[in-house]
Amino acid sequence: MSARRVDTGRITLHVREQGRGPLMLFFHGITSNSAVFAPLMEQLSHRFRTVAVDQRGHGLSDKPETGYDADDYAADIAGLIRSLDAGPAILVGHSLGSRNSVTAAASYPDLVRSVVAIDFTPYIETEVFDALESRVNAGDQLFADAAAVKAYLAARYVNLPRAAIDIRAESGYRAVDGGLRPLASPTAMAQTARGLRRDLVPVYRAVSKPVLLVRGADSKLVSADALAKTSRLRPDLPVVVVPGADHYVNEIAPDITVKAITNFVDA
Amino acid sequence: MSARRVDTGRITLHVREQGRGPLMLFFHGITSNSAVFAPLMEQLSHRFRTVAVDQRGHGLSDKPETGYDADDYAADIAGLIRSLDAGPAILVGHSLGSRNSVTAAASYPDLVRSVVAIDFTPYIETEVFDALESRVNAGDQLFADAAAVKAYLAARYVNLPRAAIDIRAESGYRAVDGGLRPLASPTAMAQTARGLRRDLVPVYRAVSKPVLLVRGADSKLVSADALAKTSRLRPDLPVVVVPGADHYVNEIAPDITVKAITNFVDA
Repeated sequence: MSARRVDTGRITLHVREQGRGPLMLFFHGITSNSAVFAPLMEQLSHRFRTVAVDQRGHGLSDKPETGYDADDYAADIAGLIRSLDAGPAILVGHSLGSRNSVTAAASYPDLVRSVVAIDFTPYIETEVFDALESRVNAGDQLFADAAAVKAYLAARYVNLPRAAIDIRAESGYRAVDGGLRPLASPTAMAQTARGLRRDLVPVYRAVSKPVLLVRGADSKLVSADALAKTSRLRPDLPVVVVPGADHYVNEIAPDITVKAITNFVDA
Repeated sequence: MSARRVDTGRITLHVREQGRGPLMLFFHGITSNSAVFAPLMEQLSHRFRTVAVDQRGHGLSDKPETGYDADDYAADIAGLIRSLDAGPAILVGHSLGSRNSVTAAASYPDLVRSVVAIDFTPYIETEVFDALESRVNAGDQLFADAAAVKAYLAARYVNLPRAAIDIRAESGYRAVDGGLRPLASPTAMAQTARGLRRDLVPVYRAVSKPVLLVRGADSKLVSADALAKTSRLRPDLPVVVVPGADHYVNEIAPDITVKAITNFVDA
């Protein structure tokens, strides 16, 4: 695994890379960063050039004051694929990254081969977004030390295995006077959380590239009803529901996620 | 569309062919024949070499006295792919053809790229098989004329569009003294129907090639429960549930079926 910053022309993004083969990009959820995909990349890098991205406002990438709508994130994806000069790319996105990946596939079909859209769909209920926004804003804290970070993360992500908590703790914070703060920009997170509420139906109706819908069977973000409505909107899109996983599908069930990805892209 | 007989070494099979590109084979349900896939082949032949097969005992293919288990049908698929010398093939199977395609993928992984498995899964209930076997055996009749055939088919396949009934009527019967009889061999159908009851769980557990599970939302053959159990067995396999379709998914909803196939194989 190597890391570097890529100047896409419009923004400079921090990425982690591993392996050779067809280009497979990974996009994390809100407040997170590229490190969460390390367990997937470890397995998939034997066959793919895997590149996980710190999206704008997150991790070690640029954090402009404004510009956190779906179209901004999708334009970054297009710029990155062009910079890497290895498209069309397979996009694997979780949550925010799922929304951004499907949006990129709809807006830049020549750059995208297909999308694995993990646990984010149209029809997410308003009260679900309210709860998400509260959690996101509550994450902007000064933590005394790494143990405090891990305690916070374990309470927020109750079903994540210890190893996944450790990855988030070790990759997502920076030392400041008095302790540790999230790398993710709080103003960027607030704008991003608001942007997630925008109606995603037109994008899902329009997208012409293959999209695999993945939902955690116990997800509190994508309800069974939201998924069912999405399937009625696009009955041609294949669905995988991962047992024993909540919203954080790829961190809780990396093996099933990897198999679902390879079953999809090998077909 | 052209038609010919292919000597596979073990059996001679009648096939219909259209188009150029990666090899995509189609396998029909019990008592049916290759003609039912014409609407799908019309669309997919622009990109694929589509070959629909009269399976053993059916249509214009050989009809040995015995040998109608899953392994017999799967060995025919392997023999055909070797004879065409254009594998690995994408297999699209409906019902009996779905069972045969997944079996072939498990037994001959080098010859199969992926499988679209339409409306046949493990865990089909005994009473469902009882009803199927009754319908299959009742089809062996002498019909006075084509109108009688169509009346019978319209009563048996209540949700099929007229065009699909016409295809079945025109392709599935032969003139005999006193009228028309099914091309499908009645003794072959009886053996085949019995063979469908064999436990399919080991095959689904073993298959390592990508399989897309397709179910008609109103199917009486694959219950919602049978599909759910199959997803628990293989949570990594993608699922498409086609609204407005019963068991005869590809004949009732060819456009959604084609989109589901291309979303799967283009990913």
